[in-house]
Amino acid sequence: MLEVKRPTLLLNKDISVRNLKHIKKKADLQNVSLRPHFKTHQSTHVGKWYKEEGIEKITVSSVTMAKYFSQDWNNIMIAFPINILEIETLNSITNRCKISLLVDNFSVLDYLDKNLLKRVNIYIKIDVGYKRAGIVYDKFSDIDEIINFCSKSKYLSFKGFVSHFGNTYNSNGKKEIINTYKKSIEKLKVLNDIYPNYEISVGDTPSSSLVDNFPEFISELRPGNFIFYDLFQYSIGSCNINDIAVRMVCPIVSVYRDRGEVLIYGGSVHFSKDFIKNKKNKCFGYAYIYDHIWKEKKRVGYIKSLSQEHGIISVDSVEKYSIGDLLVIIPIHSCLTVDKMGSFFINEKKVLIM
Amino acid sequence: MLEVKRPTLLLNKDISVRNLKHIKKKADLQNVSLRPHFKTHQSTHVGKWYKEEGIEKITVSSVTMAKYFSQDWNNIMIAFPINILEIETLNSITNRCKISLLVDNFSVLDYLDKNLLKRVNIYIKIDVGYKRAGIVYDKFSDIDEIINFCSKSKYLSFKGFVSHFGNTYNSNGKKEIINTYKKSIEKLKVLNDIYPNYEISVGDTPSSSLVDNFPEFISELRPGNFIFYDLFQYSIGSCNINDIAVRMVCPIVSVYRDRGEVLIYGGSVHFSKDFIKNKKNKCFGYAYIYDHIWKEKKRVGYIKSLSQEHGIISVDSVEKYSIGDLLVIIPIHSCLTVDKMGSFFINEKKVLIM
Repeated sequence: MLEVKRPTLLLNKDISVRNLKHIKKKADLQNVSLRPHFKTHQSTHVGKWYKEEGIEKITVSSVTMAKYFSQDWNNIMIAFPINILEIETLNSITNRCKISLLVDNFSVLDYLDKNLLKRVNIYIKIDVGYKRAGIVYDKFSDIDEIINFCSKSKYLSFKGFVSHFGNTYNSNGKKEIINTYKKSIEKLKVLNDIYPNYEISVGDTPSSSLVDNFPEFISELRPGNFIFYDLFQYSIGSCNINDIAVRMVCPIVSVYRDRGEVLIYGGSVHFSKDFIKNKKNKCFGYAYIYDHIWKEKKRVGYIKSLSQEHGIISVDSVEKYSIGDLLVIIPIHSCLTVDKMGSFFINEKKVLIM
Repeated sequence: MLEVKRPTLLLNKDISVRNLKHIKKKADLQNVSLRPHFKTHQSTHVGKWYKEEGIEKITVSSVTMAKYFSQDWNNIMIAFPINILEIETLNSITNRCKISLLVDNFSVLDYLDKNLLKRVNIYIKIDVGYKRAGIVYDKFSDIDEIINFCSKSKYLSFKGFVSHFGNTYNSNGKKEIINTYKKSIEKLKVLNDIYPNYEISVGDTPSSSLVDNFPEFISELRPGNFIFYDLFQYSIGSCNINDIAVRMVCPIVSVYRDRGEVLIYGGSVHFSKDFIKNKKNKCFGYAYIYDHIWKEKKRVGYIKSLSQEHGIISVDSVEKYSIGDLLVIIPIHSCLTVDKMGSFFINEKKVLIM
């Protein structure tokens, strides 16, 4: 068992690969291709697991991340409206890597056409209600303008549409996720009826996990978080608790018998400040004892507050704990926890992220 | 002007030093010693500015941080209940550095006494109402037990009490901060009446910034955030907007004219997810144009939502912005933003944190 002295992030390969096989099998059965999002793990080490399952293309969320993964992958989508200030970095990888870019604004095309050195794929980011990024799905004149520009461009190959059903994250249970998914799909169907010859790529983790039958016009799935899942995904119904492949291990530094609480070394610089609601209280993670870390079923408490390095855990039987004991935490948001920690352990081997 | 291509954190030395001089002068006038908390900047480069102002002792929040700063400082308080699992690291610095430890639990003393290699100072962490860490201020029997143990120990010199008025962070304006401070001070006075011969160290940024007259029994101040301040401190009344010494610069990657919003490359992996309320809405930072970055007074918008790499800014005149423009953001929580970014620029010089 790994000797832990300070907050340490552990990753379970078996669970991760099981999650991956599950989604891959579903995609294969449905004849939808899989382009998993790598922002969740940010690691070429973990990336190799996807290769072993036959994955050939990936999604990233920044040009920097595309450059990092281009050492191993030759088909990468940067699923973020392209930041033209990074054109040099982008041009440094288009030689060795087929790059797909997202645009949601006509004004960026001329710059790309004039400054790219190699041909890239262009996808239009489509907003089906999340209102973060994207052209609203029925703004056909805006869409036509982009397709027309690309058709005359030397460097821009228009390929299709990309959407992210971010609203599924606001769901309360499986039914709501499926409902949000269905509403979003209806809008994409309108789009597909007008533009039947282009690809349509979707793929938030909640709906990718729960939907079994995708309409034929969906060509690609891009979920990311599903590889590890986390307490947030569990709380909205995307996964079972046994599907979660990340744990933080934190030392107990004080015990407060009167309050039924223990203090751990582990705060917002380790976990991030995301929380779920546990009845009426904020919950920043579930706590378990360190023995049988991946099999332990019995929750012993939850993190009720976090500051920079402190976590306060409300525990069931406070008399059981001593300073120097370790507690295991299932974090709320695995992507941010991985990003904050910068490294994780897999079977006692330390892996650095990008 | 620094060429910015991706989210970049800038730091203003003049403003920081002005903030430092202001607090140092106040402490000197009041005959209170200053032991600033270094978790805000985590940088030996910034640490030198404190030396130039005559600061001789510092506060940190972890053993790792103590080790990092022990290259430059020989008097360090680890203001976090000591994590006994890090005893080896601790012993590696007690030779070259006078270390002060916090305890709030009798059970840790025996371990320390048996495993330390050099004498350290011991302070009892006192809870005056924040309910995070500490022994409640009037639990005299618990306090006596610790003092008695230390009096017989070869390695533990009991020095006094440390408290953090974390409740001041929940204040709404200067009056409330002062009120919370006064209530906390009353409790420490009870403590001081019983134990008049020991030091009492306090020091959150809100009250350290606003209180001018400290009672005589307060021996030390330990604020940290005041060196940079941030939008949160401004929102509760700790500082003026001109006192804030940090800015994030982020590229605009899309413009949504219908919504009056722009999308920046800059998300929760850069800013953290702390927010303040802007009327009824969440606000993750104020936005300004990039010209005259430190002098710009006119706010042009605010970050209304953040995801991993995306920030949505509601702007006043959306037609003014183009993809590739830069926006300047005053972040909500400078400590977490610095920790997330891992580096900052001072006059175009890049500085890495620990």
